[in-house]
Amino acid sequence: MTDPATMTAMMTATAARAAMRAGRLTAAALAEACLARIAEREPAIRAFVHLDAEGARRAAAAAPDGPLSGLPLLVKDVIDVAGMPTAQGSPIWAGWQARADSAAVAAARAAGAVILGKTVTTEFATRHPGPTANPRNPAHTPGGSSSGTAAGVADGMAPFGFGTQTAGSVIRPAAYCGVVGYKPSYNTIHRFGMRVMSESLDTIGAMARSVADCALLVGAVSGRDLGDPDARPDGAPRVGLCRSPTWKQAAPETEALMARVAVALARAGAALADREMPAEIAALEAAHPVVMNAESARSLGWELATAPGKISESLRERLAFGLSRTPAQVADAYAAFEAAQRAFPAAMEGLDVLVTPSAPGEAPAGLGWTGDPAFNFIWTSLHVPCVTVPAGTGPNGLPLGIQIVGRKGEDRATLAWAQWVAAAVG
Amino acid sequence: MTDPATMTAMMTATAARAAMRAGRLTAAALAEACLARIAEREPAIRAFVHLDAEGARRAAAAAPDGPLSGLPLLVKDVIDVAGMPTAQGSPIWAGWQARADSAAVAAARAAGAVILGKTVTTEFATRHPGPTANPRNPAHTPGGSSSGTAAGVADGMAPFGFGTQTAGSVIRPAAYCGVVGYKPSYNTIHRFGMRVMSESLDTIGAMARSVADCALLVGAVSGRDLGDPDARPDGAPRVGLCRSPTWKQAAPETEALMARVAVALARAGAALADREMPAEIAALEAAHPVVMNAESARSLGWELATAPGKISESLRERLAFGLSRTPAQVADAYAAFEAAQRAFPAAMEGLDVLVTPSAPGEAPAGLGWTGDPAFNFIWTSLHVPCVTVPAGTGPNGLPLGIQIVGRKGEDRATLAWAQWVAAAVG
Repeated sequence: MTDPATMTAMMTATAARAAMRAGRLTAAALAEACLARIAEREPAIRAFVHLDAEGARRAAAAAPDGPLSGLPLLVKDVIDVAGMPTAQGSPIWAGWQARADSAAVAAARAAGAVILGKTVTTEFATRHPGPTANPRNPAHTPGGSSSGTAAGVADGMAPFGFGTQTAGSVIRPAAYCGVVGYKPSYNTIHRFGMRVMSESLDTIGAMARSVADCALLVGAVSGRDLGDPDARPDGAPRVGLCRSPTWKQAAPETEALMARVAVALARAGAALADREMPAEIAALEAAHPVVMNAESARSLGWELATAPGKISESLRERLAFGLSRTPAQVADAYAAFEAAQRAFPAAMEGLDVLVTPSAPGEAPAGLGWTGDPAFNFIWTSLHVPCVTVPAGTGPNGLPLGIQIVGRKGEDRATLAWAQWVAAAVG
Repeated sequence: MTDPATMTAMMTATAARAAMRAGRLTAAALAEACLARIAEREPAIRAFVHLDAEGARRAAAAAPDGPLSGLPLLVKDVIDVAGMPTAQGSPIWAGWQARADSAAVAAARAAGAVILGKTVTTEFATRHPGPTANPRNPAHTPGGSSSGTAAGVADGMAPFGFGTQTAGSVIRPAAYCGVVGYKPSYNTIHRFGMRVMSESLDTIGAMARSVADCALLVGAVSGRDLGDPDARPDGAPRVGLCRSPTWKQAAPETEALMARVAVALARAGAALADREMPAEIAALEAAHPVVMNAESARSLGWELATAPGKISESLRERLAFGLSRTPAQVADAYAAFEAAQRAFPAAMEGLDVLVTPSAPGEAPAGLGWTGDPAFNFIWTSLHVPCVTVPAGTGPNGLPLGIQIVGRKGEDRATLAWAQWVAAAVG
């Protein structure tokens, strides 16, 4: 990856933006570098369901001024782009075209972003995988459900893109592909034009090759103040090392990672303490699948009524689970969510952030299974911001990530500490 | 209204359901009665943007068994029905057809409901009115934004229908038209396929000619246990009479109404106490427009970018207000929402429900203004269940409503006490 076009394609968004502002790079050259990278690598990676090279060239030639001016962007295929298909990873929606931009895409476009196309999602952003391969080793899954955005960003096809998370669909694939993933606090990016499955959980997030790029993208499209994306905080954080209630699912490389990260953070000056989550938060292990599947089955009511045979068997089983919960069971699951959310401030007492695994281990072999969201669904259910940053590799040489978790609404501080952690462990 | 077809059209859903189960009424006859009523009255009332008489006849002839079997339903035109237009009250979306049923409509159809068509909404469910007239006096507004469903239900075009509420768009038009309106707890009915403007506020609700019918519809499409829709609770409620922080906007007929309701409730055995809302809840008067308009402007990003001239001037002004709030102002408004929601349980201490005005007074004259949601936005922001029931008339002979408000998630109890209040004041 030493030719100039590839080096351009691998620039971070903030670096490319600085180069464009300094007159050393044009939006057209950046778009062409990404398109060349896509042409070279897409046959092996299969990140896209729809590539709009000509549209991207036109947008790059006329990108409005704004915080994202001229920056190429990937859009997960559960989020509408006007005039492009939104197939949602399902044959039921193959060929259907959105009339309007989603709120997220409209905001990105208004900020100057150049939409390259739509990226592979698992079926309705659940578990049944698409064809995307992990760029670090194409025999392994990139994770999901935001498979195409993770793989494309990791492979230099674009500096950043949108994913969505209901359980672990941003953080896990970002970790598996060796990039940064950021799931903001719930209700940070407006979901109009996204196929919402679970009203209580679904969150639009960002994947990029730096924390700063994630902050840049989400800040631009949400209107939130996420700070100077390149700023690093003064001082050092008070970190709660959290093995998480699902620690039994950690692979040996994750046990080693947590130990290694603890040493690195201590050396860099962080105040460390082990922190366990209380029973109210551990209870999300039972409550999350009830809320997720009961709500998802409601979202898919039309598909279940008109085309059940085109829904994968594994998803049909999950939806049947959701629909077979009694009203009392669903009410109990919502009550468990509220209790967990109420318990979280006390669980964070005295800390700036938690540091916890991003995934059970390296990306699993094969493309048939996108891995387990065991280390993600708790934070999604709590509605809190999470950032995964690359943290070395595992026994197969595949990337590992480490996850930084903050308080709801404290996305700016969480991102800043994630920068700090990335520098300490990098 | 004494001919048999009109009497059939004016049956409540629960009465029609009982008649069908007893073999005294067919779904086809009920649909024809509603279609006849529509044919007679629609030229004066203008409740529909799209009527599907043939589709309704086919559905009535083949309605599946279920809690809503054979019951005609109106759908506000911000909620998708497969194969019908969803114009959202805007020329920007005129003629656009939804491919899929929204989650609410898919669930209603699966439960046996017969979709009659799409009903008038104000522009994007905000303030700019549609053509609908109030059936009780066509020179007056039916209220909005759920104008067509309110007017259609009041006028015997269908026993019930869907509305949506961001400020007061279910409760206020229901009160103005003399029907029952029910805005459930936030996130009771899944919003897939609804044009969501404000993620934090938008709630799908029901309008009907009885509390039981509202409970029947919402229970059937949400999977929540709302109890036997005809059940009345034993005993009498502890009622907080709440003039509301916006009491200064109450018209004289509303002052008289509150006094009259207090007497009626006391006579029926309720334990009454005046109850004021604390400062945290009064603060929603400033916070609600910030959250609503900032979020709505994000939802309408594509329309603002591609067709700003087709957005009404009054809506453009509201969106500009939203977009011009600083990130800190928006963050403060979200914090005010959380503080108000946290303060509500204490404000309800010792009470079963609050009883508070549904609207400032009677429906205003003219069709150019749908009235003020002054007595609604607080409860919408609190995410709590609200029910308006008819409570006599005002100086122009137009309906007044009285609003019953409960705790979040306690919809079943709130509906039951609303039945009780309706009987006491009726």
